[in-house]
Amino acid sequence: MDAGDLVIGVDMGGTKVLAAAVDAEGRIAAQGRIPTQAQNGPIDVVARVARLLTEIAEQAGAPNRPLAAVAIGVPGQVDDAAGLVRHAPNLPGWTDVPFAELLRARLGGEPRVVLDNDVNLAILGEHVYGVGRGLRSMIGVYVGTGIGGGLILDGQLYEGAHAAGGEIGHTVLEHKGPTCRCGGRGCVEALASRTAMERDVRALIAAGHKSDVLKLMEKHDSPHMTSSIVHRALRDGDKVMHQVFRHAQKYVGLLCANLVNTLDPQLVLIGGGLAERLGEDMVAHIREVAYEHFFSPEARKQIRIVPTQLKADAAPLGGAWLARQRLGYKPELGAPLH
Amino acid sequence: MDAGDLVIGVDMGGTKVLAAAVDAEGRIAAQGRIPTQAQNGPIDVVARVARLLTEIAEQAGAPNRPLAAVAIGVPGQVDDAAGLVRHAPNLPGWTDVPFAELLRARLGGEPRVVLDNDVNLAILGEHVYGVGRGLRSMIGVYVGTGIGGGLILDGQLYEGAHAAGGEIGHTVLEHKGPTCRCGGRGCVEALASRTAMERDVRALIAAGHKSDVLKLMEKHDSPHMTSSIVHRALRDGDKVMHQVFRHAQKYVGLLCANLVNTLDPQLVLIGGGLAERLGEDMVAHIREVAYEHFFSPEARKQIRIVPTQLKADAAPLGGAWLARQRLGYKPELGAPLH
Repeated sequence: MDAGDLVIGVDMGGTKVLAAAVDAEGRIAAQGRIPTQAQNGPIDVVARVARLLTEIAEQAGAPNRPLAAVAIGVPGQVDDAAGLVRHAPNLPGWTDVPFAELLRARLGGEPRVVLDNDVNLAILGEHVYGVGRGLRSMIGVYVGTGIGGGLILDGQLYEGAHAAGGEIGHTVLEHKGPTCRCGGRGCVEALASRTAMERDVRALIAAGHKSDVLKLMEKHDSPHMTSSIVHRALRDGDKVMHQVFRHAQKYVGLLCANLVNTLDPQLVLIGGGLAERLGEDMVAHIREVAYEHFFSPEARKQIRIVPTQLKADAAPLGGAWLARQRLGYKPELGAPLH
Repeated sequence: MDAGDLVIGVDMGGTKVLAAAVDAEGRIAAQGRIPTQAQNGPIDVVARVARLLTEIAEQAGAPNRPLAAVAIGVPGQVDDAAGLVRHAPNLPGWTDVPFAELLRARLGGEPRVVLDNDVNLAILGEHVYGVGRGLRSMIGVYVGTGIGGGLILDGQLYEGAHAAGGEIGHTVLEHKGPTCRCGGRGCVEALASRTAMERDVRALIAAGHKSDVLKLMEKHDSPHMTSSIVHRALRDGDKVMHQVFRHAQKYVGLLCANLVNTLDPQLVLIGGGLAERLGEDMVAHIREVAYEHFFSPEARKQIRIVPTQLKADAAPLGGAWLARQRLGYKPELGAPLH
């Protein structure tokens, strides 16, 4: 392994795929994005992701400098050793897909393909190049369609004994609360995800409360209440949106407190599309509720709760770092991001 | 350090102090117990603990083989580097007490004194000599007056960034639930500790439900519903006790599921006085509820939930192991317990 080897980190989401070639110092040499179009099925997605990677590799110096490794973050469970995507609820048809093999067959030169959870790559990116540089422990709380988590403990990505850790979205906060997609009740995902917020907004509107959220969705031809619609409605002072958002912030705050009381990290990072757009406007009330529920009074002085710094670049950067590490390169942690 | 050095592990509880001299293979060479009599204040407790340690050391070979190190588990927050007990809610007057120095002044020969949380020593004992031998990750859930937790992650005791991890008792499970001693509401400690069970039993009796629990307390001259009274009432088929106990088991089960979904360990251990007495009779329903709430269906096959194996010996054994380790001895983990 040479520090100059070409690696690409990829964030494969339900709606878009982001990829970046990143050098050993964390500088993005080339990047690109495509819509996922997951409805076309895995074979089509693989073909288009391979094209995207080839283009980015060429911009970054291929074929003179061949692509050495790719790490891909997938919204679901993967088996990296077997090169499989086990299950990805937001990607129709992605059950036991041999993603690594399919992708290698499309890319020249047999690059190494590493698979991980998208949230793990994002927290890794923030740890290596973002707000968590140099820390020994941090927790990422990602609020989107669902709620996911990533843990850095003792300076390492913590994946659990069966690579199933970090499912913080299924922390029960209200035993008799609303039903969750996991079959349980009162999981924080069923209380505070964007999906839960949309359900609550629709219920309040159906009950006669005045709100422009549904009109905004129509205007933007969006079947769902996206982060950008939430952002817009909050900015416009929509009362229903404000009420629902504050309710969700409270539960994310309780989740943060539960995690802090158990794991005593140095930092909690709030990520996902809403946090990328709203930053401190989202985090302030989450922090307030969390601090109220910290068991250790000193924790309020010691433990920071902050929004994502790298935003959409976090997972591609984390992926590139992981890819380089898997090639045997041991970059120094905490190097400055340029 | 010689493997033959004399070390003692101590569990200093609110009502009794247990201590054991343990050899490098985990065999208890000598042991003893005294009532804590915490109401007499720290100076008196230190004097009596020092006498207990001297007696046990003599039984185990002192003065020919002098006491090399003591590790003491305290029900509260300690600062081991400074030798201080910071705060121990169940030990009146124990705020910023220089326990290590006071104890060394009473013991001959300047043994090393190590301080830690009692629950940390207990999970360490189970990890080294008990049901967790050879595991990389396990979580201890200790149900007593309060609810405490200990974490073994990546084969090591996990203490958190500010030695404040493991406060799983203050995991909020019912946001609008009963008030907790921490000031919050709906913490699992306020729902499922022995203190919460006693509150619920008293409330049901006050509401006219028939139960013999208060009579049992009177008969045994106990102002509180101890583990032994809970055990007896359950055995006698007391309906109120059964109802309250099952309610508590449910919340401990939810706590276990939250911890498993976040940390994906190999094993969850249920400890504390009730689990020591009831074993599988306590754990069965906890496991049932936890398994229902695991996010990963495979986790039901992979993750065991079991009662404590070492019971009251866990913390003294863990303490002795920690004391020996601090002296520089690196015992092999997973050695058989004789």
